[in-house]
Amino acid sequence: MKQRKIQIGVIGGREETPEVLQAACEVGYLIAQKGAVLFCGGLGGVMAAACKGAKEAFGLTVGILPMEQSQLANPYVDIVIPTGLGVARNAVIINACDGVIAIGGKFGTLSEMAFALQREIPIVSLYSWEIDPAVLVAKTSEEAVTELFNQLNKLNLLP
Amino acid sequence: MKQRKIQIGVIGGREETPEVLQAACEVGYLIAQKGAVLFCGGLGGVMAAACKGAKEAFGLTVGILPMEQSQLANPYVDIVIPTGLGVARNAVIINACDGVIAIGGKFGTLSEMAFALQREIPIVSLYSWEIDPAVLVAKTSEEAVTELFNQLNKLNLLP
Amino acid sequence: MKQRKIQIGVIGGREETPEVLQAACEVGYLIAQKGAVLFCGGLGGVMAAACKGAKEAFGLTVGILPMEQSQLANPYVDIVIPTGLGVARNAVIINACDGVIAIGGKFGTLSEMAFALQREIPIVSLYSWEIDPAVLVAKTSEEAVTELFNQLNKLNLLP
Amino acid sequence: MKQRKIQIGVIGGREETPEVLQAACEVGYLIAQKGAVLFCGGLGGVMAAACKGAKEAFGLTVGILPMEQSQLANPYVDIVIPTGLGVARNAVIINACDGVIAIGGKFGTLSEMAFALQREIPIVSLYSWEIDPAVLVAKTSEEAVTELFNQLNKLNLLP
Repeated sequence: MKQRKIQIGVIGGREETPEVLQAACEVGYLIAQKGAVLFCGGLGGVMAAACKGAKEAFGLTVGILPMEQSQLANPYVDIVIPTGLGVARNAVIINACDGVIAIGGKFGTLSEMAFALQREIPIVSLYSWEIDPAVLVAKTSEEAVTELFNQLNKLNLLP
Repeated sequence: MKQRKIQIGVIGGREETPEVLQAACEVGYLIAQKGAVLFCGGLGGVMAAACKGAKEAFGLTVGILPMEQSQLANPYVDIVIPTGLGVARNAVIINACDGVIAIGGKFGTLSEMAFALQREIPIVSLYSWEIDPAVLVAKTSEEAVTELFNQLNKLNLLP
Repeated sequence: MKQRKIQIGVIGGREETPEVLQAACEVGYLIAQKGAVLFCGGLGGVMAAACKGAKEAFGLTVGILPMEQSQLANPYVDIVIPTGLGVARNAVIINACDGVIAIGGKFGTLSEMAFALQREIPIVSLYSWEIDPAVLVAKTSEEAVTELFNQLNKLNLLP
Repeated sequence: MKQRKIQIGVIGGREETPEVLQAACEVGYLIAQKGAVLFCGGLGGVMAAACKGAKEAFGLTVGILPMEQSQLANPYVDIVIPTGLGVARNAVIINACDGVIAIGGKFGTLSEMAFALQREIPIVSLYSWEIDPAVLVAKTSEEAVTELFNQLNKLNLLP
């Protein structure tokens, strides 16, 4: 039986600077290059940028939306889960991920980092919250992805 | 922009006869052959059989689990969403689907059919509940998939 | 320690005939008279009528809404839980109840009855779905409440 | 029509020092004295202490549990909502509250504060996270409740 691919979440805000969006796009690209499936909230901003990057590297993207309308997903989402759960979908995103990279973002992102800290999965922060020593802080998109996969490797979570 | 693939749910029971499981496997195969993504609850019985069939046709499978443990997914699930939502995940499965085929099943399946009827998406019943005229009844796995895609076609939901 | 009060759900449609709404009001009244807390979806139709009846008997009412806006609760709801979960809140309502009376209703009500059947809690149907022998069928509001409490009594669920 | 009572959440950890639990008990007492309904996660630690305090002041308490088993609620919960939603229930708790007091706690509490910040409802921190200027910091239980109700008053949220 072939093992399932690693599932990596990219979480972050809907409204970010071009610099942050560029980083999100690069992070998405690198995640896909490593053969992982990219999970996100499926909407705009960091989520759309990361999905766009992943598609450029021929990756697979999953968008877990708060609303019931699948047509509200960004155009780079392959698999759309329009949950209808509102912000409770933040918990579902984190439950689905083996590791998470937070890029920018505000309180929605903070709630997701809190759930990730509670689950004790690897988390990297790039221009985002640094609320706990368990959060690895990265300065570039490359560093963020490298740190996350190093951590996953240490925990024997890579296929 | 490439359009997203159609997402088809296969819902049904964990404990079914070999005949029903065989039908589920065939339904999964045919769904994958038509290029659709197969959605299910990610566990055993009808869910595992349908995923197995889809993988034999090189399809993509998504399992939306009630619990938080991804390792409880059946081995034919490619993308695993361990929601932790309990039975509320039944609503999430249906919200994610463009159409549904019910195969066997009991009350969990009934709740999913009810959500599908409420959303007014195409539903086919194969050895399952026939609670409303809107539910199309099929006698074979082939008939089930054909009827569902005819209905999706009528509604202009096919890419 | 005082034991918690019995929690009874009244489920049903938003648009019903005056006859059905009158029955819902009477059911709410009788549930409150028996000292139980009335649970419902918190919106209009059967839900509002049942809450109104319960308040006439000085009972306590809980409304578990699909949306996040508490102001959309009917005016007879004492405790409002605006879940934001969409239809997934149907599962939460049923998980909170010791027994359920279904009055009228369509597919939303059917999903709730399915969850109640799965949990194997007592269910009475009044002008509603009769999908399984485990559903007790009543012809009047009084009969509905009496049958439900008889069933709860048999199961030693009454305080 | 009588207006609904204010609904105040007390969030915090399961394992806390006696000093923190004493503060939670006092906070619960004061909330009930002000005529508000106390909402919490329904389990032990800060949640049980706050409910105990509220009951000493003859208040009403609501426990929104992550699991489906109502018997796991602490004995001071009047209305139990065993959601079965896992940690996604944190979003439901916050959606139900007009204001929140955080007492101690770790990442679960942090996720709830993040949701409360996103909803822009009044939040007071007592021995808890101070992650944003919008979080009012209190040093005593009395100060916490006074600050919260002052804030609710300013926003015209008191009945």
